[in-house]
Amino acid sequence: MLSKSQISLIKSLYQKKYRKEHQLFLVEGFKAISEFINSNYVIHSVYCVKDMISNLPKSIHKQKVFEVTVNELEKISTLQTPQGILAILEIPHFQITKHKDIIIVLDGVQDPGNLGTIIRTADWFGFREIICSENTVDVYNPKVIQATMGSLARVNISYQPLIAVLKNSTLPKYGTLLNGENVFNINWPKEGFLIFGSEGKGISSDILDLITHPVTIPGSGQTESLNVGISAAICCAEIKRNTLK
Amino acid sequence: MLSKSQISLIKSLYQKKYRKEHQLFLVEGFKAISEFINSNYVIHSVYCVKDMISNLPKSIHKQKVFEVTVNELEKISTLQTPQGILAILEIPHFQITKHKDIIIVLDGVQDPGNLGTIIRTADWFGFREIICSENTVDVYNPKVIQATMGSLARVNISYQPLIAVLKNSTLPKYGTLLNGENVFNINWPKEGFLIFGSEGKGISSDILDLITHPVTIPGSGQTESLNVGISAAICCAEIKRNTLK
Repeated sequence: MLSKSQISLIKSLYQKKYRKEHQLFLVEGFKAISEFINSNYVIHSVYCVKDMISNLPKSIHKQKVFEVTVNELEKISTLQTPQGILAILEIPHFQITKHKDIIIVLDGVQDPGNLGTIIRTADWFGFREIICSENTVDVYNPKVIQATMGSLARVNISYQPLIAVLKNSTLPKYGTLLNGENVFNINWPKEGFLIFGSEGKGISSDILDLITHPVTIPGSGQTESLNVGISAAICCAEIKRNTLK
Repeated sequence: MLSKSQISLIKSLYQKKYRKEHQLFLVEGFKAISEFINSNYVIHSVYCVKDMISNLPKSIHKQKVFEVTVNELEKISTLQTPQGILAILEIPHFQITKHKDIIIVLDGVQDPGNLGTIIRTADWFGFREIICSENTVDVYNPKVIQATMGSLARVNISYQPLIAVLKNSTLPKYGTLLNGENVFNINWPKEGFLIFGSEGKGISSDILDLITHPVTIPGSGQTESLNVGISAAICCAEIKRNTLK
C-alpha cells in the first residue's frame, strides 16, 4: 500500500518546481521504465501492479519496488489510462560528451509533445546529444517523457546558455531558415550544431546571428512553416542518408 | 452579440456527432480562417472581435460576419487562449481528384495532433490527397484543425473503406514496415499509395496483405518505432527529393 508521503512526493513531481527541488522525475509504462532500468539512470522507486512485478528487469533492487493496486495507480498516474507501472528516477547530471557528432540545439521549443518527439527521432537516427535553451520546455515534464517512448534513456539532454555554447565553438552551426541552402544538397559534416527554433517565433535573433549555414527544407510554397518536430526529423533523416551514401 | 442559438450551435460542433448532423465544423485563428475564405470551402459564419473585422479577406459576405467581444469569444472557443476569431465552415464533399500523384493513406491514426501535422506536412510538400480509414480520428475535430495551421484548405481528406480502395487499384502500394526497402534508395513513381498505420498497432493485417512495396526508414536500431507523423514526413521529404533530382 502507498503511504501518504509516497503519494505526496509523486504528485509533487507533476510540477517543475518540485522536480527541481527533489532532483527527481516520473516515468510511466513498462517498456520505458525497463529501458531506464537498463540504462545509467538511477531508479529511486517503482510502483507496479502485481502482474508486472515478475517481468521487471532483474537488475532492479527489490527494495525499490512497491506493489500497488490499479486503484492506487490511478491516484498517482499522470495518464488518463494508467499503464500498470510508474517509476521515480533521479535527474541525471550529464557532461556534454566529447565524441564527434552533430549536436541538436533547441532554442525555445515550448510544446512537450514536440520535444518528446524530437528526442524519440534523435534516438532513432542515433543522435546522442541535445542542448536546450533555458526557456525550452522541461524535459522531465511527464508529457515530454511520455512522448519520448523510452528514448530519453539513450539521448543526453542538457539546458545551457546557447549563445555562450555556440560562441565558444568553431564548429559549423546549421539552422533551418527560409532562405538557406536546400537541405537535400548539403554535404553534412561529422561535427556541428543543428539549431531549431520555437513553434511561434522560430530561432531567436541572437542565435540567428551565430548561424554559419542556413538550411531550407524545400516545399510547394503554399504553407508558411513546418512543425518543429517535423523539420528536425527531416534534417536528421538527411544527415543519416548522407552517412549511408 | 451572440444569440443563444449561435452559442449552442458552436458548442455542439465540439462533438463529432453534431458535426456530422449539421455538416459543419469550427476553425479558429485569423490566418487559418483567411486561408479557408480564399479557398473552395463554404463559410457558414465568422465570429470576430472588432479590431480584426476590417482585415478579413474582402471576398467574405458581410452578412456572415458577427462582431463579438473577447468575453463572448472565450465562451465559444475550444482554445485555452482564444485568437480573436472563430468560424463555422461547411464540411466539403470531395471527389478523389484524378491527377497523377502519390496519395497518402492513413489506417487508423488516432491522435488529433498527428493527423493535423500530417496534413500540414503533406501541404508543405505539395501532396493534395489523403485517404483515411473510417476508424481514423475525425479531421474536423478542433484539435486536428488547430494542428493543420490552415493547411486543410489545400489538402483533400476523405474517409473510405481502405481495403476496397486499394484492391480496386493497380497502382503500387507503399507501406512503412520493419523489413522493407531502405526509404533512401527507392525510386518513387509518379502515382501510387503511401500507407501509414495507427500509433499503437501500425498497419492493420488486412491492409498489410495489400502492400506491394514495403518501405523501411533505417535507424540506429535501439528504439522500436518512430511517431507516425515523423515517418510520414520523412517519406514525403524523400519523394520530394526524388522529384527534384
